[in-house]
Amino acid sequence: MKITTPTLLLDKKKALNNIQRMVDKARTSGVRLRPHFKTHQSAQVGEWFRDFGIDAITVSSIRMAQYFARHGWSDIVVAFPANILERESINELASKVNLHLVLVNLETAQALAQGLNHQVKVWLKIDTGYHRTGISPHAHSELDEILAAIQQSEQLHFEGFLTHDGHTYKQTDTEAIQTIHNTSVYLLHLLRDHYKMQFPDLKLSLGDTPSCSVLDDLSGVDEIRPGNFVFYDLTQEHIGSCNFEDIAVCMACPVVAKHPDRHEIILYGGSVHFSKDSLALEDGSIIYGRVVALEQEGWSEPLDGIELASLSHEHGIVRATPEMFEKYKIGDIMGVLPVHSCLTADLMKGYMTTEGEQLEHMSGVMQLV
Amino acid sequence: MKITTPTLLLDKKKALNNIQRMVDKARTSGVRLRPHFKTHQSAQVGEWFRDFGIDAITVSSIRMAQYFARHGWSDIVVAFPANILERESINELASKVNLHLVLVNLETAQALAQGLNHQVKVWLKIDTGYHRTGISPHAHSELDEILAAIQQSEQLHFEGFLTHDGHTYKQTDTEAIQTIHNTSVYLLHLLRDHYKMQFPDLKLSLGDTPSCSVLDDLSGVDEIRPGNFVFYDLTQEHIGSCNFEDIAVCMACPVVAKHPDRHEIILYGGSVHFSKDSLALEDGSIIYGRVVALEQEGWSEPLDGIELASLSHEHGIVRATPEMFEKYKIGDIMGVLPVHSCLTADLMKGYMTTEGEQLEHMSGVMQLV
Repeated sequence: MKITTPTLLLDKKKALNNIQRMVDKARTSGVRLRPHFKTHQSAQVGEWFRDFGIDAITVSSIRMAQYFARHGWSDIVVAFPANILERESINELASKVNLHLVLVNLETAQALAQGLNHQVKVWLKIDTGYHRTGISPHAHSELDEILAAIQQSEQLHFEGFLTHDGHTYKQTDTEAIQTIHNTSVYLLHLLRDHYKMQFPDLKLSLGDTPSCSVLDDLSGVDEIRPGNFVFYDLTQEHIGSCNFEDIAVCMACPVVAKHPDRHEIILYGGSVHFSKDSLALEDGSIIYGRVVALEQEGWSEPLDGIELASLSHEHGIVRATPEMFEKYKIGDIMGVLPVHSCLTADLMKGYMTTEGEQLEHMSGVMQLV
Repeated sequence: MKITTPTLLLDKKKALNNIQRMVDKARTSGVRLRPHFKTHQSAQVGEWFRDFGIDAITVSSIRMAQYFARHGWSDIVVAFPANILERESINELASKVNLHLVLVNLETAQALAQGLNHQVKVWLKIDTGYHRTGISPHAHSELDEILAAIQQSEQLHFEGFLTHDGHTYKQTDTEAIQTIHNTSVYLLHLLRDHYKMQFPDLKLSLGDTPSCSVLDDLSGVDEIRPGNFVFYDLTQEHIGSCNFEDIAVCMACPVVAKHPDRHEIILYGGSVHFSKDSLALEDGSIIYGRVVALEQEGWSEPLDGIELASLSHEHGIVRATPEMFEKYKIGDIMGVLPVHSCLTADLMKGYMTTEGEQLEHMSGVMQLV
């Protein structure tokens, strides 16, 4: 199919390799892979996971759970603090699938205990160091109170402790990521030891893309929940989670203007396509994407001397060396690896595979209001 | 209607006041108001403009032009460098409406001259200082070449010179904005004088929200094209384009967690709802939104001692003083004024007016691929 406007290309082979690698690592580590589907949000990409034997998934909203439930997924963790205002949708969803919710406070446990007519599994989210949200692993009295509320409820079933090491995203060396991961596993083990008499079957769940990619051994917990790894992006390459050749999505943007005086190329492709996420490089420069050569069946590694330097609403400004500047003409399609594939996919609302197939993204098929 | 998930509220009265003020200013300045519809991208909000006698609009993509053409708009400027790869869509659209395109180079003029079967009006985009894209006002030989290509074409009709002073967005004082505006008007006048023998009817078009809001007199050009003013946002308040009470959109987000140790409140509302645009304040802090009190018919001015300090995918992290922290509980809905209303509206894909009416956004009703 001919590309005429900004298009998100998806290299299925690369995505399948990324999935295969994570499936293998989960198997050798003896943990269950419960992939986070918020990165792709696509029914069709979901099917690729199913072909690897994946039958349980993670999502980040009730709406996303509804979408994947409609597409046949029946074991779903909503990895976001349960929102008591969505009781109705939760009830409806819990009547159909094996729904897991995440609790971070007593108020929510109590409200759900009162408001639900169907069984849900609940995880307590533990803050093992990221400090975005979650309960402190040392707050035993708080944990006891929440667990008591859960046990008094007929609908809530305690599943275990869950954490998310979002602070690995700020690291660029393996040792730091290993330390973060070990700390989380250690804290989760302490919790399990503390509560194992009361809950002999409790499970432990963690797993962000950096630690699941960088570390070889993920044993010590019951399940891992990485998401971004299916596509990866420049941020993950910068962290060390992947190589450039693992990045499975690439923006294809028309060249609409050239400015020889400053060697800048204007793309049709702006912040409403890429998102505003940027990457700070060691030399202090900020980039919004790296340019690749589009090829018959995919794209090259990033080219030197040319990068996406700035974004406004629909405009992308590419800065190039004089040599690279000369290689492009008005009407060309330029390939750009995104800084953050989750946000780019969410804005693009769909994919075109390198084989020319259109795949859907939830944002393109459901309305928010 | 009950709010249970992140929702973009729209205060119609405020939006109508914002439109009224700009309509009045255009009238007293003797210029045509051709509002940019990329901020709201809503058929229904478009109708509000029609009630003020507006019959010509600006958009930022062919797709947006198609959307508004379907909703009865017949005089549309696509204020983005014409993309020759979209020839087919341009042709189709030009067969139905009075379509205006923007040219920034000879290649595009030549490609369109060859590829179009229907009449389109064309504007030459002049770079009067923003340096994103556009032709230098001093590049007479380049302008002559493009104008010659236009004149040789049966389909292209030269309309005039157009500019966009995007650099006003970096200013916070009226004098700087006045200087930028005066410079652009001066340069456009020089061009008009230079070409008036050849094109006696050529028109001049400019107009970003900061200059159109801050300056009293916009005379000297034929039309102005501000867009953001319909909603405004924290960025525009920071520039001085509006007061807080003029901001016509407000996010409503459920409170899902509270962390008393650090006085942080976790909202259901993250970068997939707000966008990643932030605002750097004088004290060096970076904010992603300001908290307001939601009221029966709208919302208050921003509250002190509480602000949206950070965003991740679905999480918003609000930092508060101990006093403000105590005022919120799990399950409350918090109001947050957005930093950049255009991007927030694009992500939210729809509105709920303070009277409870649902309004559409193009992103919620059309797919990109």
